[in-house]
Amino acid sequence: MKLEVFLSLSEFEEGDAKGKRAVVIDVLRACTTIVYAFKNGAERVIPVSSVEDATRLLPTLDKKATLLGGESEGKKIDGFDLGNSPLEYKRQKVKGKTILMTTTNGTIALVRSKGAKELLAGCFVNFDAVSDRLTSGRLDVAIICAGKKGEFALEDAACAGMLVQKMLEKNTELQLNDGALAALLLAEKYPVVPELLEISSHGKYLISLGFEKDLKICSKLNSAQILPLVEDGRIVPAQKPDSKK
Amino acid sequence: MKLEVFLSLSEFEEGDAKGKRAVVIDVLRACTTIVYAFKNGAERVIPVSSVEDATRLLPTLDKKATLLGGESEGKKIDGFDLGNSPLEYKRQKVKGKTILMTTTNGTIALVRSKGAKELLAGCFVNFDAVSDRLTSGRLDVAIICAGKKGEFALEDAACAGMLVQKMLEKNTELQLNDGALAALLLAEKYPVVPELLEISSHGKYLISLGFEKDLKICSKLNSAQILPLVEDGRIVPAQKPDSKK
Repeated sequence: MKLEVFLSLSEFEEGDAKGKRAVVIDVLRACTTIVYAFKNGAERVIPVSSVEDATRLLPTLDKKATLLGGESEGKKIDGFDLGNSPLEYKRQKVKGKTILMTTTNGTIALVRSKGAKELLAGCFVNFDAVSDRLTSGRLDVAIICAGKKGEFALEDAACAGMLVQKMLEKNTELQLNDGALAALLLAEKYPVVPELLEISSHGKYLISLGFEKDLKICSKLNSAQILPLVEDGRIVPAQKPDSKK
Repeated sequence: MKLEVFLSLSEFEEGDAKGKRAVVIDVLRACTTIVYAFKNGAERVIPVSSVEDATRLLPTLDKKATLLGGESEGKKIDGFDLGNSPLEYKRQKVKGKTILMTTTNGTIALVRSKGAKELLAGCFVNFDAVSDRLTSGRLDVAIICAGKKGEFALEDAACAGMLVQKMLEKNTELQLNDGALAALLLAEKYPVVPELLEISSHGKYLISLGFEKDLKICSKLNSAQILPLVEDGRIVPAQKPDSKK
């Protein structure tokens, strides 16, 4: 069974996840925000790669039940209902809604990974939910670090490394790629998530924009055990095994 | 002073090295082969991005003094004089020659980095020569790991990390990007170069092709203190400071 980590989105091409269980990691902040949207009752999130795609898709959806969310350069986009801060996705705003979402990193990674057999969104807040899913079954696994503008980001790679640790605990025979070996080292070196986010370049950038509170939310390990699952281009919360009956 | 490591070539865009001192790392094998070509008397190496570019450029050069070198999928290209094994670049073949060279990783990285203010080629065999150059002067530094087909490769990132270590010894105030922090960890974890090459995915692939001997050559730290310098698209060995008079 193979376990590959793609340390930056630039390394990852559309076919790379084909036939595999894949998880896109974007700690700061898209995946965390998507988890919070579901925690507060959103029905689905539709990830798109650009503002243009969002604008084109919007008229095909029920306008009253749809919100536009996302960011460019970390900031809310003009004319959008929501930015990319998990704190904005409050219950009174998002309950029952569809969120049409575009961000610089996470949503692009989710769109590019659509060839996977199963596609998940992960981060620190839903870490155990993702880890439990990855350690079940025998599918090869691809972990795609969304990073920052295609480049490597410490926090996503460290989160990927923690998933590699969990998978190795269950299966010592895993075939790791070079990216997985490197991610493992990062997880060992930076075990304290809040500190890690303050060291990372993206974390520093968000602090400079005034998003310190977001860093606290994004670093709360296992604070929201929701597993976002991408099906036919739409993200929905995966049903828990015992609710499938 | 900034020190950036690009962990894979996919992350690196042409403008990223502008105005900086840049070094392309390709341990397996292009940079090692280039160093060996110079060690054995080659006059210059012209790196190109594809077999097509090599074929187009060849008629503009002195045919008798030019050799075609390089690989595709690790193997010598049909009709080429030399492959990409440092062992092939013997004195009786390469002395006084120009090598027109195309490879899957290193030469592409060298071509893409041409916007740098100064551009070097580095690997383990010429480690100290590169390190001495990088620790002199005050230019921002970009270290570009050539990797394998655009993806992350353990050996290049570990070599980059060793350069980061050397630079930090001289200047503790360096501003490191996330890639440099990760490369540092790899250098700490994998200090024994021959073993590292056997763990790496690219190393395993070369062993499967029968290139075990190349791995031994490529892991010999400081076995050839030559500093390949790219000037106007051509690589020449940099003159040693005391021969500049």
